[in-house]
Amino acid sequence: MSRIRRVRVDLDERSYPVLIGSRLLDSVGDRIVRGTGARQAVVVTVPPVGRRYGSRVLRALRGAGLRASRIDVPDGDATKNLRQVARLYDALLERGADRETLLVALGGGMVGDLTGFTAATLLRGIPFVQLPTTVLAMVDSSVGGKTGVNLPQGKNLVGSFHQPSLVCADVDTLGTLPGRQRAAGFAEVIKKAAIWDAALFARLERSAEALMDLDPALLPAVIERAVRIKAEVVSRDEREQGVRMLLNFGHTMAHAVESLCRYRGLLHGEAVAMGMVYAARRAEELGLTRVGTSTRLAELCGRFGLPTELPGFERSAYLDALEVDKKKRDSRIRFVVLEEIEVFAAIDPRLFTAREIG
Amino acid sequence: MSRIRRVRVDLDERSYPVLIGSRLLDSVGDRIVRGTGARQAVVVTVPPVGRRYGSRVLRALRGAGLRASRIDVPDGDATKNLRQVARLYDALLERGADRETLLVALGGGMVGDLTGFTAATLLRGIPFVQLPTTVLAMVDSSVGGKTGVNLPQGKNLVGSFHQPSLVCADVDTLGTLPGRQRAAGFAEVIKKAAIWDAALFARLERSAEALMDLDPALLPAVIERAVRIKAEVVSRDEREQGVRMLLNFGHTMAHAVESLCRYRGLLHGEAVAMGMVYAARRAEELGLTRVGTSTRLAELCGRFGLPTELPGFERSAYLDALEVDKKKRDSRIRFVVLEEIEVFAAIDPRLFTAREIG
Repeated sequence: MSRIRRVRVDLDERSYPVLIGSRLLDSVGDRIVRGTGARQAVVVTVPPVGRRYGSRVLRALRGAGLRASRIDVPDGDATKNLRQVARLYDALLERGADRETLLVALGGGMVGDLTGFTAATLLRGIPFVQLPTTVLAMVDSSVGGKTGVNLPQGKNLVGSFHQPSLVCADVDTLGTLPGRQRAAGFAEVIKKAAIWDAALFARLERSAEALMDLDPALLPAVIERAVRIKAEVVSRDEREQGVRMLLNFGHTMAHAVESLCRYRGLLHGEAVAMGMVYAARRAEELGLTRVGTSTRLAELCGRFGLPTELPGFERSAYLDALEVDKKKRDSRIRFVVLEEIEVFAAIDPRLFTAREIG
Repeated sequence: MSRIRRVRVDLDERSYPVLIGSRLLDSVGDRIVRGTGARQAVVVTVPPVGRRYGSRVLRALRGAGLRASRIDVPDGDATKNLRQVARLYDALLERGADRETLLVALGGGMVGDLTGFTAATLLRGIPFVQLPTTVLAMVDSSVGGKTGVNLPQGKNLVGSFHQPSLVCADVDTLGTLPGRQRAAGFAEVIKKAAIWDAALFARLERSAEALMDLDPALLPAVIERAVRIKAEVVSRDEREQGVRMLLNFGHTMAHAVESLCRYRGLLHGEAVAMGMVYAARRAEELGLTRVGTSTRLAELCGRFGLPTELPGFERSAYLDALEVDKKKRDSRIRFVVLEEIEVFAAIDPRLFTAREIG
């Protein structure tokens, strides 16, 4: 069996391990039983992922002595909403869910966010485990305890902080992930490298194509490093009152673009790529960021096949969209600004006035 | 101005004060501005309470420089549900709610639970303040951070732990509270005395009638003592994994009775009175509780006008109702058992088998 990489998210009594490796899905039952007092596990997934891995995960859970069953939710970020949460409550109570029931989120970020929020709020909080099956979920959304659902007014407007008990990232599941989805996940790796780790940024520049091909000699270490950055940031600032805000680099404009596209035809990572390049370019023009940073970012994103230019909506449309960003303070708009790769200007995002938005 | 009593709920960075006194509603704006960084406050209340105190609270908030507005939710525990939460999200976003917006729960336990849960989940958590206007809310639900709403399947099945930033209990608001509501609130005071404080129990026995008449020489001290017990228990065990479970004394059967009555015609405190007397009587019969304890409890409840005998549903109906209690573990039923007043047998509730339910 190949090496299992282990990252600890350090949050006192809410600490938990993130495991990264091959064939992890088959041992998940034992790990859950060892790490939690669960008696029943309910796997929440979407049909395509459930068809592929559902029975393996159920077998692993039952093999460890857990009562186990599976609930499918419809695929797509559009269904990450309160109606699905209410349906999950119903389905879980029907299965006799109690405080010894554990939810298992099997899938990408949407499944993790929806399952996590359900776990955070059913019976005032039951445990859950993340089994991410996308690059994005492995390096970003499965770690850190942000859970949430969308409202018609915007994305992730409802949610809570609820840490998982365990994250198992089985890298074998990435083999069936379409290239565009892979790239969108790497956008978050690029982001973490940009705000935190110039060596990782350089490693991505050396190996973009091999990583897109999921080279087993390179990929697990890169995922581990990205998870380590996320774990470090989250440990220092679980509730995004300080340093965790840095993880929003590129996200102010990404949210605006996603909202203007009505969350269709654009993956979150693609919007983040556009948003990072935009933020760096604008901050260079304002003399805040070292010249050349945005070009380096754009080139790296391009090698992963990520888009880097904003769609051609009117400036006023962008301003409108930015105004509903939930991270605004008054009428100013918050952007995370880097001085250069790995160096950030301040922990607090800079407040841009509308005039400064190009 | 009369004395303000102050109890601190000690939870590290989530600590907050509970203030008890006269004419507190008029100073709530300054206290909020001093204690939080809020810029906007939205008061959530029910129409009868809003008509009585809404404009005073809005004046106090605006006087302290806050943007302030009010949202009314329909009265009654039946509307403490997910639909009302969704309506609150909409109304708050329409008012431009962001992370500098603070919710103010003005009313009884229903308003506090609903507002608290909305605050816990909007934008992954915004601050809120409790202005309880019932005995029950002052001595119990406003302190400790339990928030939640009902599902068709049962009460408080959805919720989370989200501590308020401040609790202001203005005892003047109790003057208009109907006697039955007052008594239901005192049931929770009796419960706290029973599990924690024989001296308070004796004080209640000395002064039941004067307390029901809201004697200003006695009432604030009794409310303060009840809040102090709650604060102490919550500080030791915020998430009800140990000693906080004691606060469920009487609640196993109370929930069953409420469910059998479909939450109609019975106040929560009345069900708790029945549940405490039942639990003590049953535990006496089983030789777990000092003989005479249940009689003392029943007599004290009776002097507050609280019912102490369970309604005459079939035994099988009770067993069915107990099974859906969310605090069950497997098929056993958890009861908090006292050895005598102020002395509990164990922190962990005793697991009664169905056979032991009389």
